[in-house]
Amino acid sequence: MADNSAHVAGIGNAIVDVLVHADDLLLHKLGLTKGVMTLIDAAQAEAIYAQLPPGIECSGGSAANTIVGVAALGGRAAYMGKVKDDQLGQVFRHDIRNAGVTFDTKPATDGTSTARCFVLVTPDAQRTMLTYLGSCVEFGPADVDAAVVAKAAVTYLEGYLYDPPLAKEAFLLAAATAHDAGKQVSLSLSDPFCVDRHRAAFLDLVSGHVDILFANEAELCSLYRTESFDDAIRQVRGHCRIAAVTRGELGSVVIADEDIHVIGADAVEAVIDTTGAGDLYAAGFLYGLTHDRDLPTCAMLGGLAAGEIISHFGARPERPLKDLARAKLGSHIIETV
Amino acid sequence: MADNSAHVAGIGNAIVDVLVHADDLLLHKLGLTKGVMTLIDAAQAEAIYAQLPPGIECSGGSAANTIVGVAALGGRAAYMGKVKDDQLGQVFRHDIRNAGVTFDTKPATDGTSTARCFVLVTPDAQRTMLTYLGSCVEFGPADVDAAVVAKAAVTYLEGYLYDPPLAKEAFLLAAATAHDAGKQVSLSLSDPFCVDRHRAAFLDLVSGHVDILFANEAELCSLYRTESFDDAIRQVRGHCRIAAVTRGELGSVVIADEDIHVIGADAVEAVIDTTGAGDLYAAGFLYGLTHDRDLPTCAMLGGLAAGEIISHFGARPERPLKDLARAKLGSHIIETV
Repeated sequence: MADNSAHVAGIGNAIVDVLVHADDLLLHKLGLTKGVMTLIDAAQAEAIYAQLPPGIECSGGSAANTIVGVAALGGRAAYMGKVKDDQLGQVFRHDIRNAGVTFDTKPATDGTSTARCFVLVTPDAQRTMLTYLGSCVEFGPADVDAAVVAKAAVTYLEGYLYDPPLAKEAFLLAAATAHDAGKQVSLSLSDPFCVDRHRAAFLDLVSGHVDILFANEAELCSLYRTESFDDAIRQVRGHCRIAAVTRGELGSVVIADEDIHVIGADAVEAVIDTTGAGDLYAAGFLYGLTHDRDLPTCAMLGGLAAGEIISHFGARPERPLKDLARAKLGSHIIETV
Repeated sequence: MADNSAHVAGIGNAIVDVLVHADDLLLHKLGLTKGVMTLIDAAQAEAIYAQLPPGIECSGGSAANTIVGVAALGGRAAYMGKVKDDQLGQVFRHDIRNAGVTFDTKPATDGTSTARCFVLVTPDAQRTMLTYLGSCVEFGPADVDAAVVAKAAVTYLEGYLYDPPLAKEAFLLAAATAHDAGKQVSLSLSDPFCVDRHRAAFLDLVSGHVDILFANEAELCSLYRTESFDDAIRQVRGHCRIAAVTRGELGSVVIADEDIHVIGADAVEAVIDTTGAGDLYAAGFLYGLTHDRDLPTCAMLGGLAAGEIISHFGARPERPLKDLARAKLGSHIIETV
């Protein structure tokens, strides 16, 4: 019988991205801080959309991007998140399922629409995000498929889940279910402002409830309220089994028990849009980890997936990650399924 | 008082594109002929979507792409076409309005959804299209804004309008309104199969009712049922005031009374997706024509806009066409508004 347990089960806010090109003037006009995610309500979403240039719509959502990346590398992947049964919800469901991901969360049939994130990409390739959570606020513990979580090698949870209140409960249930089954729990800190909103909870999660932590430099520094990266590294050491911290063009640092691995990033020919870089780093890393690769290899897989995503507009892979990984790191790196 | 008459008023099927990467195997599996547009119904749309890989959504529609191109070059542009008041309809409306186009057609409030076109882009950069007309079938003569048409220098009509029955009536009304006001009518032949479906009507239009004809080589040959391009050119001569015929990497040929202008195409670094090439050629050409540029310059503007669109995924411009035109053809080429 085929093994249908997921290598990685992801839970997150199911979101459709609206990607637009923007300049600094527009960010200023909208009062936005570059590089971060701001939550907006329905009325704000309408008012802001009216001021945005034409865009393209593309399935997104932080954990969903990660899970699609795991599937693109050939891993078995499952996702839980709440869309509405509207047109954008259908787009989200189509895209994630046809990327090879198991996605069976029941869509909301009434209430607000599928979540949207306006992603403003500036010429410096930075992205600034405005998220209308929509039907994500309906996601709760009843939507956690315990059978899937209990069988998954890693359950991956995005920090953004702490924004909608019911999702936080779902988060805690999923983490407990995974640990009860002897499986691992992974958390992404998501965004420095998100860390700000939920610092106490995240500190508690990181010390004892999370096996694999993903963060970028700004998020980790925000978590420990320090401006020193070395200080942040020192503080996270020993709190969770593995912490993988990304540093943009500097690559990443992996802290695991006594070891610290520093892995450089490959030069990317042209950085077009950094949306999804952290999500895809986690995808490559988790593919490696759930296929028993050593930590530096996990980090290299992460860097490779992140490098693909920042070379084009949007946070879902455009080129076959499997082939890229084989070409770059050797054909043994990806399992033949 | 500012002149608010449009340089170009476009009427067409208002469509949201679903762009996916595809290979020849998928085209074969779906029984599709590469490079053409096939009409599908709602059930087929659902069945086919289920077989497509993840995609991105982007406002499209042949005439709408052209009109957005005219606006991007700085022309005053108006559009008429029927979306539904659903999420994709809102996306369409947002994108065309925020591209600077006047768009006031009332959306349909019941009936089928906003039209979708699945655009399958193969590695050879060819696009193969499947169109579900949705609410476009609701577009009729009552949706033609006679005041806008009567004031527009050129009314641009896509041949695809002959597919939904009421739209054909709207087409004829708009053409008559434009001519009664002493303005010009332009037709795009749209697609060789579309020409096949409506050859008699298109032949009648071209001989006497159309001032400016746009076609590619295959469409013009289909119109006159000939395999010889020279024969097709010979036949179209004298039928309409101007015929602009595109030939892909060979550039274009403009036939105007006694003159034939042959204009080469610039090399495009990497052709990614030919979707919208003809639409944007028409945009550049019509911008030039409505700003009293000579015909070779109109053709060069067309080639420039087409060159931009084929250098990326999707049929709406990504780079500022005004700046490209000024850089390439001289700053005098684009009016300072």
